[in-house]
Amino acid sequence: MNDNENNGTPLGRLGKFGLVDHIAKSFRNINRSTIAGIGDDSAIIDSENNLTLVSTDLLLEGIHFNLIYTPLKHLGYKAVVRAISDIYAMNGTPSQILVSLGISGRFSVEMVDEIYEGISLACEKYMVDLAGGDTTSSLTGLTIGVTAVGTVEKEKVVRRNGAQANDLICVTGDFGASFMGLQLLERERKLFEKEKVTQPDLSGYEYLVGKQLKPEFPAKVLAELEASGILPTSMIDVTDGLASDLLHICKLSDTGCRIFYSRVPIDYETVKLADEFNVDPMTPALNGGEDYELLFTVPLSMMEQLNNFKSVKTIGHMTSSGTGCYIVGDDGSEVILSAQGWNRETT
Amino acid sequence: MNDNENNGTPLGRLGKFGLVDHIAKSFRNINRSTIAGIGDDSAIIDSENNLTLVSTDLLLEGIHFNLIYTPLKHLGYKAVVRAISDIYAMNGTPSQILVSLGISGRFSVEMVDEIYEGISLACEKYMVDLAGGDTTSSLTGLTIGVTAVGTVEKEKVVRRNGAQANDLICVTGDFGASFMGLQLLERERKLFEKEKVTQPDLSGYEYLVGKQLKPEFPAKVLAELEASGILPTSMIDVTDGLASDLLHICKLSDTGCRIFYSRVPIDYETVKLADEFNVDPMTPALNGGEDYELLFTVPLSMMEQLNNFKSVKTIGHMTSSGTGCYIVGDDGSEVILSAQGWNRETT
Repeated sequence: MNDNENNGTPLGRLGKFGLVDHIAKSFRNINRSTIAGIGDDSAIIDSENNLTLVSTDLLLEGIHFNLIYTPLKHLGYKAVVRAISDIYAMNGTPSQILVSLGISGRFSVEMVDEIYEGISLACEKYMVDLAGGDTTSSLTGLTIGVTAVGTVEKEKVVRRNGAQANDLICVTGDFGASFMGLQLLERERKLFEKEKVTQPDLSGYEYLVGKQLKPEFPAKVLAELEASGILPTSMIDVTDGLASDLLHICKLSDTGCRIFYSRVPIDYETVKLADEFNVDPMTPALNGGEDYELLFTVPLSMMEQLNNFKSVKTIGHMTSSGTGCYIVGDDGSEVILSAQGWNRETT
Repeated sequence: MNDNENNGTPLGRLGKFGLVDHIAKSFRNINRSTIAGIGDDSAIIDSENNLTLVSTDLLLEGIHFNLIYTPLKHLGYKAVVRAISDIYAMNGTPSQILVSLGISGRFSVEMVDEIYEGISLACEKYMVDLAGGDTTSSLTGLTIGVTAVGTVEKEKVVRRNGAQANDLICVTGDFGASFMGLQLLERERKLFEKEKVTQPDLSGYEYLVGKQLKPEFPAKVLAELEASGILPTSMIDVTDGLASDLLHICKLSDTGCRIFYSRVPIDYETVKLADEFNVDPMTPALNGGEDYELLFTVPLSMMEQLNNFKSVKTIGHMTSSGTGCYIVGDDGSEVILSAQGWNRETT
């Protein structure tokens, strides 16, 4: 729907540096650490004795998004959330992003503006500055690279490798919603293509579609944990799928794990749509990915404190090395937890 | 030549995290500031009171490189040089890179290894650590995103906006070689496609082809300047073209400039091939781009000190605001300096 060829101001009219100026105009720096942003060779960041965190992500048209049903503004917003989620997952605070765009000739200035409008909204919401980037032409499709920079106090960094046997496995939010939202959008796209149904029917599934197109990151949970003096032993942002990301923590921490089938949080809409598609809702919940939720472990001794957090749910516990990774049914049966991963990634 | 379909180990055999492990194995950290690298949510960097510099670049197949004549190893090497040149251009020292790869199904593990072999060589040569990244599948072509991180002492950072009227305009190396190297490779590719000439004839132009396929950055000039107590007033790495990048410095510094036709350094091979192609060698020299040389300004008072530097040439001087930007011929005639830019970028 955004693929309007030759509609709007051609990018060529601005030129490369002109485009940078054009983008820079609508951004203002928020963080004191942003010494220099857009327009120089690199961003200059003052980390003031803290550790600097840097993470980078690539979003490719046809792999990570389909412009048929992805509004460009949402795409810009999501690209930022995706990038800064890696900084949060180290228990850090994101402060800057750098955005690289590869844009094909069919894009107009107005379309690029739409992407940056979404980027700007996410920057405001999560208090990060756009501190640079690169714009280049693309022969194939839209490519978005986002680098996120943040800081963390040296003693507060949380890695993937710190989980211990008996630690509680905690999560925020619910799982599988984004994946099911994507399935719904894909179904409606196919209907549109085959039967020229002009109005996609997404009613009753607004939450799923929102999770897919404009996800938010539960940043405030980290602030709450800090305020309560809880420092996770390990943490990861769930983007590849709950199973895959939990197995990754287990591998790096050299632990096993047990999670409980009935404790994995799944939204009502996810269950309902999974039923329509005739799949077990646990499949998207474990393997869907793009949930943008936090998965972390805390010492067992913190169980009572954790009960005060409405937005955190305990789904199981870590076990000692070599005991395997299992999902435990209500009847006590154990099924091996396997990583199907997120099917958009290289598998 | 690297486009061997289904030749070698399919990437799927490793899986996403497997691929990360596979890559991590062949890299060892050099810099003390690299607290954590590959395998966690983000890189952790200790900047120890210095400013942190971050820059990001995107390389797209068909736009920035053609795999027909670009060995994957060289491509990896060049991607690193390109990224860290932005850190050097702030007078910084690069210390880490993060690499994002978008890889299509036709790539094998061995091909990815070749790219990383080149990355590894460049990392060793320029003393930087591979500190993370992302790997994803691509529907379209090979996409390489490189983020470079570095540090600089607060009082030594050199921006693009510090040039003053009468400052000398200095450059390293020579210009137009990379562009002419590309023209030669393109000519041979077309001959190969049309007449099935199997052996490209690059003899006599080894320097041009080397500048295009495996450029180096004149990092040691920065060390020499520092040792001599010369701090440039402004600096940029020449990647878009000498004219475009100089005009950019003038714009941000609010100055004009005069450069002298006969002082722009051009290699003998560039002149010879430009002659074969029937173009004025000044055209690629001013507008070719991808030179990976330094362009910087220093106060006029440093002219004598500069004469000691064999690898630095003075090509002109800055003038006061509003006096325009010109290239001055041997007869004193002035031609307006215009930015044709690098024709691979969005223009």
